[in-house]
Amino acid sequence: MNIKIILEYDGTNYSGWAKQKNNNTIQNEIEKAIYSISEQKVEVYASGRTDAGVHSIGQTVNFHIDTKIPADKIKFALNQNLPSDIRVIHSEKVGDDFHSRFSASKKIYLYRIQTGEVKSVFEKNRSFFVNDSLDIIKMKESAKLFLGEKNFSAFKTDGSSAKNFVREIYSLEIREKNDIIEIEICGNGFLYNMVRIIVGTLVEIGKGRDLDINYILESKDRKNAGPTAPACGLYLKKVEY
Amino acid sequence: MNIKIILEYDGTNYSGWAKQKNNNTIQNEIEKAIYSISEQKVEVYASGRTDAGVHSIGQTVNFHIDTKIPADKIKFALNQNLPSDIRVIHSEKVGDDFHSRFSASKKIYLYRIQTGEVKSVFEKNRSFFVNDSLDIIKMKESAKLFLGEKNFSAFKTDGSSAKNFVREIYSLEIREKNDIIEIEICGNGFLYNMVRIIVGTLVEIGKGRDLDINYILESKDRKNAGPTAPACGLYLKKVEY
Repeated sequence: MNIKIILEYDGTNYSGWAKQKNNNTIQNEIEKAIYSISEQKVEVYASGRTDAGVHSIGQTVNFHIDTKIPADKIKFALNQNLPSDIRVIHSEKVGDDFHSRFSASKKIYLYRIQTGEVKSVFEKNRSFFVNDSLDIIKMKESAKLFLGEKNFSAFKTDGSSAKNFVREIYSLEIREKNDIIEIEICGNGFLYNMVRIIVGTLVEIGKGRDLDINYILESKDRKNAGPTAPACGLYLKKVEY
Repeated sequence: MNIKIILEYDGTNYSGWAKQKNNNTIQNEIEKAIYSISEQKVEVYASGRTDAGVHSIGQTVNFHIDTKIPADKIKFALNQNLPSDIRVIHSEKVGDDFHSRFSASKKIYLYRIQTGEVKSVFEKNRSFFVNDSLDIIKMKESAKLFLGEKNFSAFKTDGSSAKNFVREIYSLEIREKNDIIEIEICGNGFLYNMVRIIVGTLVEIGKGRDLDINYILESKDRKNAGPTAPACGLYLKKVEY
């Protein structure tokens, strides 16, 4: 039986998604929980890795197991075997050919920023604190320039196996509510650190730095983009199939 | 110089506001931080106590010190000497006769509830998880019956020195957004645990229990009201003067 689950996690205390021998990762916890409910050692497939400190409200994962537990109840069984900062919020049976990563058509990331004079106690590990006010209008103008199919070589960190750097961004929305700025970005896929470098660049523009997105994209040179925004502000929001 | 400060705190790791000899309290931390910046041992006055686990986004405190630090910069000086789960978000000089507790005219509390099947990882220690759906319409109907000047003896826990149990509730608003229910209550003052017992009673009504607020109020008997809702959902939002 091929099971698809949707995960919510607070990434603060984990070394990211991907399984590692001596580290605490989300994948390790999920595979341990599946073993607890089924006594089967299975490999789980995620829509993509998330780095240490990155959160999820929609990470999608699948795995094949034999079990008598009804598919929609698997979430409760797994939650009883997971730490409280990882929760399965949905579980269902899917076709045998469904694969969380290869079947994905769109991914949506959310990035949260808190601006102002004092970092809120309730935003600890939950957003990027920018001790400044940001020019949202300028950020929105620049955001438009990311839309469409582009080569994002300037907006990636080396270290992934990707060889094709063309991705399509379908939408990039910036919302402001009190001192919280949310940046939501939807695309057909993202290079390593791409969302965090896009956000880091938009924040520099919001602070008044004169950066030309078209120029940076065309240069294909990481050095021309802004810094990589911190992991704690990033949430994998949704994966569409 | 009489200084008024507004505090935000995550109450999770504290034994409440009030100073205790061997316990970690917010008041202990504030008085230590004031000593660090002024070398003066002063007593600080809050608008009221908050219990262990209760949060603040608007607790108001005052104290008298001699200092050359400009009043509006005291917040930064204190924040450098406070743990990251307590922040001073505002500081100003006020008249000598201002007292955080005795000068207060209104207090506003916010109570957060998460409903649904799975407790969100991001709501840990931040809301009361109710593993159910609540009938908001019934809760709103009952909420109206708390408005006005009433004797709230049935909605208090013994243990405070209060002798007059009449309080006036100016507003009690219930808002729902996705799986979060917020209850905001404004009054001229609150008895010990009064907000948490009002919320606990409204939650029982939301679950379908047949409780008559007028009857409970008139009975003046704590046993007739619902349970005390947990501390982690409660936020002191604002104190008005």
